[in-house]
Amino acid sequence: MPQPDHVTALDIKDRDNLDERRRKYLRILQDKLGFVPNVIQAYSFDNAKLAAFTDFFTDLMGGASGVNALEREMIAVVVSSINRCYYCLVSHGAEVRAQSGDPELGEILAMNYRAAELSPRHRAMLDFAAKLTEAAHQIEEEDRQVLRDAGFSDGDIWDISAVASFFNMTNRMASAVDMKPNKEYHVQAR
Amino acid sequence: MPQPDHVTALDIKDRDNLDERRRKYLRILQDKLGFVPNVIQAYSFDNAKLAAFTDFFTDLMGGASGVNALEREMIAVVVSSINRCYYCLVSHGAEVRAQSGDPELGEILAMNYRAAELSPRHRAMLDFAAKLTEAAHQIEEEDRQVLRDAGFSDGDIWDISAVASFFNMTNRMASAVDMKPNKEYHVQAR
Amino acid sequence: MPQPDHVTALDIKDRDNLDERRRKYLRILQDKLGFVPNVIQAYSFDNAKLAAFTDFFTDLMGGASGVNALEREMIAVVVSSINRCYYCLVSHGAEVRAQSGDPELGEILAMNYRAAELSPRHRAMLDFAAKLTEAAHQIEEEDRQVLRDAGFSDGDIWDISAVASFFNMTNRMASAVDMKPNKEYHVQAR
Amino acid sequence: MPQPDHVTALDIKDRDNLDERRRKYLRILQDKLGFVPNVIQAYSFDNAKLAAFTDFFTDLMGGASGVNALEREMIAVVVSSINRCYYCLVSHGAEVRAQSGDPELGEILAMNYRAAELSPRHRAMLDFAAKLTEAAHQIEEEDRQVLRDAGFSDGDIWDISAVASFFNMTNRMASAVDMKPNKEYHVQAR
Amino acid sequence: MPQPDHVTALDIKDRDNLDERRRKYLRILQDKLGFVPNVIQAYSFDNAKLAAFTDFFTDLMGGASGVNALEREMIAVVVSSINRCYYCLVSHGAEVRAQSGDPELGEILAMNYRAAELSPRHRAMLDFAAKLTEAAHQIEEEDRQVLRDAGFSDGDIWDISAVASFFNMTNRMASAVDMKPNKEYHVQAR
Amino acid sequence: MPQPDHVTALDIKDRDNLDERRRKYLRILQDKLGFVPNVIQAYSFDNAKLAAFTDFFTDLMGGASGVNALEREMIAVVVSSINRCYYCLVSHGAEVRAQSGDPELGEILAMNYRAAELSPRHRAMLDFAAKLTEAAHQIEEEDRQVLRDAGFSDGDIWDISAVASFFNMTNRMASAVDMKPNKEYHVQAR
Repeated sequence: MPQPDHVTALDIKDRDNLDERRRKYLRILQDKLGFVPNVIQAYSFDNAKLAAFTDFFTDLMGGASGVNALEREMIAVVVSSINRCYYCLVSHGAEVRAQSGDPELGEILAMNYRAAELSPRHRAMLDFAAKLTEAAHQIEEEDRQVLRDAGFSDGDIWDISAVASFFNMTNRMASAVDMKPNKEYHVQAR
Repeated sequence: MPQPDHVTALDIKDRDNLDERRRKYLRILQDKLGFVPNVIQAYSFDNAKLAAFTDFFTDLMGGASGVNALEREMIAVVVSSINRCYYCLVSHGAEVRAQSGDPELGEILAMNYRAAELSPRHRAMLDFAAKLTEAAHQIEEEDRQVLRDAGFSDGDIWDISAVASFFNMTNRMASAVDMKPNKEYHVQAR
Repeated sequence: MPQPDHVTALDIKDRDNLDERRRKYLRILQDKLGFVPNVIQAYSFDNAKLAAFTDFFTDLMGGASGVNALEREMIAVVVSSINRCYYCLVSHGAEVRAQSGDPELGEILAMNYRAAELSPRHRAMLDFAAKLTEAAHQIEEEDRQVLRDAGFSDGDIWDISAVASFFNMTNRMASAVDMKPNKEYHVQAR
Repeated sequence: MPQPDHVTALDIKDRDNLDERRRKYLRILQDKLGFVPNVIQAYSFDNAKLAAFTDFFTDLMGGASGVNALEREMIAVVVSSINRCYYCLVSHGAEVRAQSGDPELGEILAMNYRAAELSPRHRAMLDFAAKLTEAAHQIEEEDRQVLRDAGFSDGDIWDISAVASFFNMTNRMASAVDMKPNKEYHVQAR
Repeated sequence: MPQPDHVTALDIKDRDNLDERRRKYLRILQDKLGFVPNVIQAYSFDNAKLAAFTDFFTDLMGGASGVNALEREMIAVVVSSINRCYYCLVSHGAEVRAQSGDPELGEILAMNYRAAELSPRHRAMLDFAAKLTEAAHQIEEEDRQVLRDAGFSDGDIWDISAVASFFNMTNRMASAVDMKPNKEYHVQAR
Repeated sequence: MPQPDHVTALDIKDRDNLDERRRKYLRILQDKLGFVPNVIQAYSFDNAKLAAFTDFFTDLMGGASGVNALEREMIAVVVSSINRCYYCLVSHGAEVRAQSGDPELGEILAMNYRAAELSPRHRAMLDFAAKLTEAAHQIEEEDRQVLRDAGFSDGDIWDISAVASFFNMTNRMASAVDMKPNKEYHVQAR
């Protein structure tokens, strides 16, 4: 049975209010990737919602940080694995494969990061993200201290927390509206 | 033992880069509430992060929607209750008490929404938010249909999902950095 | 939608058999508190059941012990928080606020005791109560030793165990019959 | 490695204050059973605690009720199975075997009541007790209605709730203090 | 209500294809035990399935190993307890009682192995089996090292893992088809 | 950090006792696949263990059944996803991709089968396998009836149960010994 190719399961009327900055953003994505990611299409029914989402995402994943871009993608995949979010596993799994040049790494983080051979820094980072996802109310000072001991600054801890928290939002948003990933991701960087 | 009055447990250097729009936002909050909510103070170390957070929040909780402002606060409290987020329970619990004029409602949603007497509309809305919080990967079309049957449009389902998802982010962010609520909330609207 | 003001959801015929000692007990409560707590009203349909409950409760919470009265109320609130018991959180939350003179403490224990600043003694006591509530079958000698190391005697361990165990009973009894708290508690000691 | 034969793991000084009524109770148990159950021995260090426990227990398991004595023991065993309480499974498992004359029933309830062939009445009763044990905060009016539909009165629902709740207390008390069952139970009614 | 005496709940046509070796195996079991275990009867509808199961089982539980026969039965019972498998708890509980000559040991492992007095070797072995049953994806090198530190060789770790894994299969098979134990087990070795 | 290429984390002395039939089996695999799957290499230290495993596996996945070969692989992947078994997800995910000619299907079953568009037959089959994996003790006659209503015979129910149960064994075995998949699987049938 072929998988559906809808963007989401919701039928929301387009408010047709995208400003020039957002229209340009969509064109850039189309040019650069060859497609507009479905999450972006999904938010495009309203300018304020698209702007809020993309501004947040851009700073989160692209802003200056002691946690590099690949590390932020690794967190995205591990959080999405725990939450079993198909959209985010497919799209950010492709990103880890592409950025790391290591297809196995993308797979193992999507399946069970505890089975991966990881540096102590990455293990500490992903353990924190996992605990924050599964039992946020049990995070305490000693959990933050483990990150400091692994070489992260307090600013880095903010960023690790922000990325892990954000994907706990988007994983749920994707599941709530049955967002499906663009088919292009499946073959990328294998 | 007196509770600590820190904003967060992290020691992050202020980047001193707030633009005029954000500085004005902080002044308005101070004037209107008598204090700047700690979550806003926490994000204020960087203009891009504060802007992204407040823009997202403003549209989410204040934008036009078939899900009214009190209903959005009710979702915030129920999600925060499941995640046992002290910051959000205190601040949004106060908001439910204030907006509803019903202190008991604020309490019961913070403690166990299933014990509350709720309209079928509100029960459906909160059940969806709870399932999305606890088992997002099990949300399916029949869960969305329950919302439609309770009178929500597909646009409303987007908004319910967005609010519930957002508090799954902020609950975790608050727990990750040990964000503490302003003491003013405790006595509001009792 | 106003919350119901029933005592419980059950319609049980009053056996009209309270003895003089129990009738006096009800009068004293009315005089002292200004109301008879609903849990007492709920058990009043039968003399033997009311007697058994109140005798047990009186010794448990009021008997001589190295665990003081406020500490016993703190355990009650933490256990009730894990079990999400609305009745017990409202009534014993009020008691913690009143006995401690610290409204924040009542709130934070009802929401997430791990977010509270606590003495090592209180943290050990509440961790034991939480583990006993969530995973009693995993309690072992080393858990009891943590309490001894925090300064508790074996008699105190009995009392901590008894209070935590008792609220695992009453939380379930309150949920089973939908017991609702007297409205007077909400505003007490804020 | 032989199992220890202590009553509990706690070393509590006997307060030597049992009144005549309690001393007689112990003698009757010794005469009738050939031994004093360890739970009774455990509470015997203090008259008020022994009195409160035995009075509560006596009315709960022996008082007049539409839920008969064997049914109350069945609830005890199912709750104790979920909580994995060795003491209560051994002692009340023996009681189910003895009262039912059906050793298999005692075993299957201690292991997995869902695998047992049960009347609709007993299945409803045990399902309620199991849900109350595992997820009390999710009990709602429809759960009580299932019991009514199976023929239970509201008074019976109180009693089912009371028994299930009580064993959630005693299971935890037994685990908290490492109470061990008298060895006599093992061979009874096989 | 008497328990059913079916072998399984499935009505599968016997393929009547047992070879001489398997027919002999059934006769030996009947002669030695006085009955053919229901698990063997259940697989007997097809020669290939009976052969595969019995060959696997024979090597697993009877092959040469540094983990002795009683220890392998202890693992079987602890895994079956976690999975609440009535068939395996009854049959392998009887086996532990018989092989150890210690009826209490059979009971306590079936109910809560953490309540048992065990040698460090046995505790390490059963903790590994329990974790493998409850959270296999969290097993890491440090878990294997605990076994080595308790005196087990890498070959023994294979065998412990194989037994614990196998009962995670058979527990599920028994539950899936509602396999019921032969009544003879109940009274054995009490 | 490159992933390790060990077969398992255990250092077990090869018993050098493979019979001709097993040696031939290894040669056939090498010729047909271009490699010997690591699970087969792992069991090859002993003839009896290799024979037992391969005989069981061959009948299970290759024997005649109303549940076709692809369906059995689909069950394998869904069970392995719940148990987060890296080895089995990689190897059987490749098998689903290859047998179905649908790379997306392999991915979505490995990540969250509930997000997939499935026929009622396949959904019933996978729901049964998932419940058997997560809560085997709650499987009852009504669960088997759902399979019958979806068109499965009692013999098919045996086979579905057997496959789901088997992967609950092998998932744990792979995690227990840190079995790593052959790297060839990653690029197959993308």
